[in-house]
This record gives sequence, C-alpha cells and structure tokens, in this order.
Amino acid sequence: MKRIAILGSSGSIGTQALEVISANPDKFKAEVLTVNGNADVLISQALTFKPKTVVITDESNYQYVKKALADTGIEVLAGEAALAEVVTYDSVDMVLTAVVGYVGLKPTIAAIKAGKDIALANKETLVVAGDLVTRLAREYKVNILPVDSEHSAIFQCLAGEENNPIEKIILTASGGPFRGKGLDDLRNVTKNQALKHPNWSMGAKITIDSASLMNKGLEVIEAKWLFDLDLDQIEVVVHPQSIVHSLVQFNDGSIKAQLGLPDMKLPIQYAMAYPQRIKNDFPRFSFANYSNLTFEAPDTKTFRNLALAFEALSIGGNCPCVINAANEVVVDAFLKDKIGFLQMSDIIAECMQKVTRVLKPVYEDYVETDKMARITALELIGN
Amino acid sequence: MKRIAILGSSGSIGTQALEVISANPDKFKAEVLTVNGNADVLISQALTFKPKTVVITDESNYQYVKKALADTGIEVLAGEAALAEVVTYDSVDMVLTAVVGYVGLKPTIAAIKAGKDIALANKETLVVAGDLVTRLAREYKVNILPVDSEHSAIFQCLAGEENNPIEKIILTASGGPFRGKGLDDLRNVTKNQALKHPNWSMGAKITIDSASLMNKGLEVIEAKWLFDLDLDQIEVVVHPQSIVHSLVQFNDGSIKAQLGLPDMKLPIQYAMAYPQRIKNDFPRFSFANYSNLTFEAPDTKTFRNLALAFEALSIGGNCPCVINAANEVVVDAFLKDKIGFLQMSDIIAECMQKVTRVLKPVYEDYVETDKMARITALELIGN
Repeated sequence: MKRIAILGSSGSIGTQALEVISANPDKFKAEVLTVNGNADVLISQALTFKPKTVVITDESNYQYVKKALADTGIEVLAGEAALAEVVTYDSVDMVLTAVVGYVGLKPTIAAIKAGKDIALANKETLVVAGDLVTRLAREYKVNILPVDSEHSAIFQCLAGEENNPIEKIILTASGGPFRGKGLDDLRNVTKNQALKHPNWSMGAKITIDSASLMNKGLEVIEAKWLFDLDLDQIEVVVHPQSIVHSLVQFNDGSIKAQLGLPDMKLPIQYAMAYPQRIKNDFPRFSFANYSNLTFEAPDTKTFRNLALAFEALSIGGNCPCVINAANEVVVDAFLKDKIGFLQMSDIIAECMQKVTRVLKPVYEDYVETDKMARITALELIGN
Repeated sequence: MKRIAILGSSGSIGTQALEVISANPDKFKAEVLTVNGNADVLISQALTFKPKTVVITDESNYQYVKKALADTGIEVLAGEAALAEVVTYDSVDMVLTAVVGYVGLKPTIAAIKAGKDIALANKETLVVAGDLVTRLAREYKVNILPVDSEHSAIFQCLAGEENNPIEKIILTASGGPFRGKGLDDLRNVTKNQALKHPNWSMGAKITIDSASLMNKGLEVIEAKWLFDLDLDQIEVVVHPQSIVHSLVQFNDGSIKAQLGLPDMKLPIQYAMAYPQRIKNDFPRFSFANYSNLTFEAPDTKTFRNLALAFEALSIGGNCPCVINAANEVVVDAFLKDKIGFLQMSDIIAECMQKVTRVLKPVYEDYVETDKMARITALELIGN
C-alpha cells in the first residue's frame, strides 16, 4: 500500500490521480489532500477518500472546511506553509505535486529532504530550480517520477537502458489550437480560442501555455534536468495527433518511443505504481483510428516562447526562473483580457533582459528572482 | 571480447555482422565462419578476420578452400554436420545463425545444448520447432537474441519491463513491392518484380517472402515463441515506410515502439552486444525526412500467406513446420519460374491439408514433417 500526498487534489491531475486511487484501493491510499481555494471539492474528496490530513491553502476557508469535517477525525490545516509540513509526515510514501506554478517548489524541496519519492506534475519546480532540486534528489536518494506525458514517455523508454547513453530526446508537441497560424493571425486571438486545445483537456494555465508553445519550452527545461541532458540533446517536433508522446535516441541510433491515446491517467498511474504497471480499462489506442501520424518542425518565429525557453536554458542560472515567473504573470493577464496573445512573449523577453542575472543561484536567489520577475512583468503590463 | 560463430557469413546478415565486428575489434571476434557454397567469399573473409575455424557446407569445395588457407593455421571443415560441431567449441561465446531455412535448426539446437547464446537471424528455426527450441533455451539457460528487425524492436521495448505483462504486440510490415495490388494484378508478376523490395536490401528468399507476406507470417510464429504469446496477442499492421519496426502494448495500455532507418546492422549489433548498446556512425533517422508515418490493415485476402500462418499457429503441432517447408520449396520454384506468384499460397495451403498432423512433435517428427512437406510440395508443383 503506497500512501500518497496529493498537492492540488481539485485540479485536473489531482482528480485523475484520485480516480486511479479509487480503481486500486489495494495499492494506493490518499493520505493527504490539499487544494488552494476550492473548499467544497476538498470536503467532498475528504469524505470519500478519508485522508489523514487535508490542507486548504486559502486560509479564509479554513473554518468552513474544519466545520464540515468536524466529526471525521481528519486533520484540517490551512495556509501555504502547511504544504511543506504535510509532505514530511511519516505516513506519506510519495508526494504527487499537482499544484500549478512556482508555489510547488517549496513543498517539493521539503518532501525530498524528508526522503519522499516525488510524482512530479508541477513542471515549474524543475524549470525554476532544476539544478537545486535534482541535486537534492540525488543527495536524499529519492526518485523524481515525471507525470507530464512527454517526460513519462521518455522515462518509460529509459527503463532497462540505465547504462546506455542517450544521444538525444525528441519531445513531441501537439502544436496547440493555433498550429499553422502566422503572427498576423495571432495578434487578436481571444482567450476562448486559446483555451480550446485540440487533444488534451487540462487546466487553464497549461492550456494557454500549450497554445503559446511555452508549455513545450518549460518541458525542454524540465527534460534537461530530469534526464541530465545538454541543450543540443533536446529536440522538439510538432505531432498534431498527440499519439507519440515522446522519443529517445540512444548512442547506437536506435529510437524508442512511447505511444497511446492522450490520457493523463496513464502517466499518473505509471508514476504512482512505478516500476510496476497496473492493468486497467483505459481506452486503448488503435492504428485503425490513427492511420496517419504526422510530424513537422515547430515554428519558433511565430511561437517565440519556445525559442525563449531554449535561450533561457542556454543562459542558465536564474534565467529559466525569470521566464517561468514572467510567464505566470502574463498568462494570468491574458486570461483577464489585459494583454494580447503576442504581448505575452514580448513581456517575457523583456523580463529576461531586465531582471538581474545570477549565474549560480541558491534557494534564496530563486525566491528573489521570482519576486523581481513578477514585479517587472506587472510593470510592463502596466498594472 | 565476445567470440562469435557466424553460420552463413557470406549472406546479407553475415556480411553485415562482419562489418559490425570490423568496427568493434575490441568487443568482438569472428571465431567461426561458415558458408554454404561461396568458397571465394569464405576464403576472403577468413584471410581478413582470421577465425579459428571455417566450414564450407558444400563438400565439393573443400579442397579448394583448404588449399587457399593452407598456411594460415585456420581449421577448414566441410559438410552440413560440421555446423552442429563448430558451434559447440569452447572458444565460441555466441552463435549468430544467419543461414536461410530449415537447415538452421540442427546447429541451433546443438549450440543451445552447448550453452551458447544465440543471435537468431534464422527465423525458420523458431517457425519449425519453436516449442522445442525455446524449451531447450530455458533448460540450458541461454538467451535467444532476435536479429529480425521486428523482433529486435520488441525485444528492445521489453528491456526493463520483465515483470510487466504484455497485452499484445504489433508487428509492422512494409507490405512489400505489391502492397495495394489485387489478385488479378498478382497472377502474372515476375520474380524480378517480386525481388524489388521498397525498403530493405535482403537475400532472395526473404525478399520473396516479404512480397508474399509469408515473411510476416513466419514472424508471427517466431514472435509467439520468442515472447511466449497467445495467437490473439499478435497483430500485424502494414507500415510502408518501415520506420516503426514494431510495438508492444503492456497491460496498462501503454505502447512502446522502436524506430529507426531500415538498417539491419542495428539489430545485428544490438543482439551481439546486448544488453549494452554500442556507439556507432550508422545513418540517423530524422522526422525531417519522414513527416508522414502511415499504417493500414494487411490485405489477407490477396496475401493469403499471412492468414495461412495464423491458421498454422492456431492448429499448432507440426503445422508451422509444414508451411515453412512448403514455403521453402515454392519460393525456390517461383525463383526458377516453375510456378506463378499466387500458386505459392495454393500449394502451401494444400500441403497443410495433406501432410500428416502431429500434435505434440518431438525432434524426429519435425525432421519427418519437413521431409514429407517438401515431397508433397514438389509433387504439387509437378516436379
């Protein structure tokens, strides 16, 4: 029985993780559930899954949740600081970080230091501080098991290949709803258009990131740290059908790929059960429904974010932290109709120039960088 | 240093195996080389690779080879019986069976009983006597490492998945030169048309088998034994580009595939070096040159051989041995312009009906079945 703390249990990954737990009550237990503000979902999940502890980050909802769970024996905590505490509980075997954004960094570090395996759906943690986080994971001998479908694909392809050097990896990208469009087309697209992803049903932030290719940019940085690669070992190919989830080429030229329908439950289950696979009744892929798999080069002139991510990785230091923070701010502003689609890249690029560079950042530098990048981005938005 | 006996060193697989050995003199040594009748190639290879022993199966060439290698210290043997002897030499670590057809069975069994790992390019060995050969391999604890590109693909995908059940495998087929043709088109095709494979450069027998889809049928049977599968766990999909070499679907629905350019040197090298991969300069695959990968169901009404192979596997016993022997005879007859392309399937089907069935064959039954099937096929050809 693996006891799991789910950070972000009301989100897309969190609820699908709970479906996996529901289907495998002999293998998994939801030990800790945390949400940001969605008190009603948390209460409902808590009554169903009977975790040891729940956390509501938004403290104004604390009394409401506390009262609703009064007779259940479930511990109720509030506030962001509680996240970094609950992940260290002795009764937790694995932490699934399914929160969105920079906020995932601190509890992930706390979990690693407590020796917990990490099922990582919060890619921003590695984007912001991949050097620090992967160093700590080696030091505390914990596994970081990717939940992103692309990184899970690569991780699956690396099974049994521990001693065989990677020549390169190829991350696939759907291309999002605006694939094939030019700059003129993108100038006036709305958030509703950007939120219509062709293949994947996901949260708002990652869906906008997919439309702008920033999601793939963040994944390039994530991959660098997860698989210990140089920049020139990472390629991106646009694959509109989202069936081939990513590929690894080894030093003999042989390529392995992982394929399947676009369904996040599979990588979630794989990370939770690793190295075991669990039989399930998820819908199966068939070539009868996908007779044509297509691949094309990404258009980084139109979708500048991907080029910016490669540039940030090449600069190194705190630069990926800058683009992550600036991106969180501009996506929020785009979703609130404060800026246009193309302005997102403009502001991120300007933040990369303006925020003080730190070549060998420690934890406090990341905190400061994140803060300064957000201030800079907000100023540029005119907020 | 792995010392390798290559049975069939003058053929397509044999010569490419020697190229791999040439490129890795610190890792491999050609310890034994054998050919059927091509004395000049054998002499030339022997002078280059300086094996301990060479065998010329065609005894009429013995004196010629013996004289040519007189001052080299290389042992020269002749006759088919010598094959089963040289594979047992203490100085041999691995046997690469790259002969074509039934003749591979006896030396393969001898090699297994001598505890040698087998790099298996002779699929007929498993088609004829898969039950016996895999049982012996388990008993003598030897690895059977597939060299067929499709089975190598599956074998590579299974690395690290030893404890995860296979749901099914999908063998890819190029479809050969006659893909898309109907029965009327095939009635009068010539051997020269059949010998023009769109993607792979191989020997004549396997090229005809590819054109008739018998090659895929034999591979289905080979896969059954190599990977311990039921009939309904094996699918075939036609993939004209020959880039995805085959796929495995695990019990969680996840699919792994192995991809690369059509180049037999890779699976040869993988089998020889397993579990290590060796860095090489083989040409690399790029999506830039393959933006479209297509997949379609095989047409088993036109290409009956694939259906016959599934039927033979379903009947079991000595039936796969029958179709293998009958196929060897009809391919030879087709190459000699004695029968037409479609007659090959007709005769194989009739042999399956006429040759006495043995449900639990032992070695001697296979020998007898092979003989009877050949006689039956020759009679049907009218020879």
